[in-house]
Amino acid sequence: MTHRIIYLDHSATTPVSASVLAAMMPYFSEHFGNASGIYSQGRRAKQALEEARATVASVLHCHDDEIIFTSCGSESDNMVLRGVAWTAPQTGRRRHLIISVVEHKAVIVTARQLAQLFDFDLTILPVDGYGRVDPDALRQAIRPDTILISIMAANNEVGTLQPIAELSAIARDHGIPFHTDAVQTPGHLPIDVDAWGVDALALSGHKFYGPKGVGVAYVRRGLGLLPAQTGGGHEGKRRAGTENVAGIVGLATALQEADELRPQEVPRLQALRDRLLAALPDLIPNTRISGHPQQRLPHHASFLFADIEIQGVLMGLDMAGIAASSGSACTSAAQAPSAVLTAMGVDASAAAGHLRLSLGRSTTAADIDTVLDVLPPLVARLRLIST
Amino acid sequence: MTHRIIYLDHSATTPVSASVLAAMMPYFSEHFGNASGIYSQGRRAKQALEEARATVASVLHCHDDEIIFTSCGSESDNMVLRGVAWTAPQTGRRRHLIISVVEHKAVIVTARQLAQLFDFDLTILPVDGYGRVDPDALRQAIRPDTILISIMAANNEVGTLQPIAELSAIARDHGIPFHTDAVQTPGHLPIDVDAWGVDALALSGHKFYGPKGVGVAYVRRGLGLLPAQTGGGHEGKRRAGTENVAGIVGLATALQEADELRPQEVPRLQALRDRLLAALPDLIPNTRISGHPQQRLPHHASFLFADIEIQGVLMGLDMAGIAASSGSACTSAAQAPSAVLTAMGVDASAAAGHLRLSLGRSTTAADIDTVLDVLPPLVARLRLIST
Repeated sequence: MTHRIIYLDHSATTPVSASVLAAMMPYFSEHFGNASGIYSQGRRAKQALEEARATVASVLHCHDDEIIFTSCGSESDNMVLRGVAWTAPQTGRRRHLIISVVEHKAVIVTARQLAQLFDFDLTILPVDGYGRVDPDALRQAIRPDTILISIMAANNEVGTLQPIAELSAIARDHGIPFHTDAVQTPGHLPIDVDAWGVDALALSGHKFYGPKGVGVAYVRRGLGLLPAQTGGGHEGKRRAGTENVAGIVGLATALQEADELRPQEVPRLQALRDRLLAALPDLIPNTRISGHPQQRLPHHASFLFADIEIQGVLMGLDMAGIAASSGSACTSAAQAPSAVLTAMGVDASAAAGHLRLSLGRSTTAADIDTVLDVLPPLVARLRLIST
Repeated sequence: MTHRIIYLDHSATTPVSASVLAAMMPYFSEHFGNASGIYSQGRRAKQALEEARATVASVLHCHDDEIIFTSCGSESDNMVLRGVAWTAPQTGRRRHLIISVVEHKAVIVTARQLAQLFDFDLTILPVDGYGRVDPDALRQAIRPDTILISIMAANNEVGTLQPIAELSAIARDHGIPFHTDAVQTPGHLPIDVDAWGVDALALSGHKFYGPKGVGVAYVRRGLGLLPAQTGGGHEGKRRAGTENVAGIVGLATALQEADELRPQEVPRLQALRDRLLAALPDLIPNTRISGHPQQRLPHHASFLFADIEIQGVLMGLDMAGIAASSGSACTSAAQAPSAVLTAMGVDASAAAGHLRLSLGRSTTAADIDTVLDVLPPLVARLRLIST
């Protein structure tokens, strides 16, 4: 018996890679100076910060000054939504926001707070049974006072990809800024802010083998944005707070590494993932894939098992050394059915049986064999107990 | 000739201590699980998070559930000011904020944004020549609609301590929440939220040998606070974003270590610092101490040298292997005279000659000897050149 964990929750978080950690190490205790200081210690930190910015800009195909380092993907989403919203009172009566119903909570809850506390109008676009936004629905939702559209690139719970370029083109036709939560995409999709047509974009370091506690907001030159976290003039006066140099160096190293490994990892993980998508609905009765069968993240498999509470499955998998989740780490403590699944037309009892298996660098063919061995009898046994 | 840097900018930032870094290491690549996950990996992270919370609560003498982990001291200040302000429209017309003129920019700029964008009234209390707020001035500034008073515990630029317990008692008499930016205090002052009488308090890990990119907000039970960063239900629904477990463990370890070392470090550093305060005004003509001569942080020395631009002094010190600053790392890139010094009645030409020397664990008596050797002739030479 081995103690190795088969970790299949890479959409929730990833371990810091060895090369990323090595890149971070000098900035904790050695080159620790304040990047705003005038002395050598500070200049060294400042240089590392600007090299990291250039690296990130290069991967996203944008300008260095369009990269703002934040503390996480949620902060990046907050920064863009609040930052654009705060400009609205100064530019007349443009007060309408559009998001989709499958957004990450960092977008949904922020948009709702803007609506409730600050009198913004909010349109929440529906999705189809695969979790996709209809471009026509976006077109029809746009109003003369729409100030921002925020639609995620890929869904964390069901893996579905949105037609971002098509959606952003509609926004651009109407002169409305378009933001995308792209937290799930690095290492899995090529990111190009011009090809995607986005004006703002959020990333989170720990989703691609970087550290927790550091994120990125891409903000296109010319996009009006007031700072949502104010104080010192850091990050081009757009995000106050002493720069987390070690974390930022780690994020940049991780993003570059993820992008470089992408051509080899995507086909490898997609083949492994496709085995799960093909086999599990056959091996486990009354099972269907959630999300789009093809237009989905290449490492992401998710299923609806009928007649079961997924918590028991997750505990059984944990006891078998397999780490998985029901979809969103951010909502796993909550008891309410997933808003994403509900929006896709999944009823509450079916949603209760949702499993997400998200693969990563550590995943092997043997791991998939193990899942295919362990999961079907586990589900069968739990169904037997619960009936 | 040695390459060792004499680092005298501990008020700007500190290196991560060896024990702190060691405590953080397992949480990057080994116990990396999402603290909201249900599996063993996640539970281990969750446990580390809650142990860190208990450690911090113990040092501050408060309840665990009053500790919110953030990304930095600036975020903590933003969280409290915005979070209390956002509750205001829901509780009638209470719309007035009081701060002091010597606050950190994270407080001043945030309060100004609240005033400019969201129609809050803002009273900015003056200070005396030592940088201290007059309790009577606070008493007179309070209005029936005052919702928050925010006055820092110790000033970063001139080291002056505020009479926090006296000020907070006035707030309490009027039933108004009192927040303090205490970022400069860990390791230098005993922190006790009840003895201090504060309802909220901000700390930043990298100021006390913890990592950059992690901070703390203490928020007293019962203080109404809407989240300023929304999304998932992390940190008791008060701060969305995947928890930076390594950083949080580092901060807690560092805070405890700083508190444990305080009884030995404070007298040691104060004796070294007092040599600077006593000697430099004698060795360098037309020099005076900025801030209060006694009621100041024990590791903090700061001076006003007449007839000199401090940038040249800082560069000269850097060439001699001594890292120092003019006062605030957050404003060092700006050319405007320090608002703190201006508020203390220092004119712009005198403020241009402000030097801060902030001592720390690495500082030795020999370092102080070196400063006393190097600084007087450096200032004399630069004064000669500039006249």
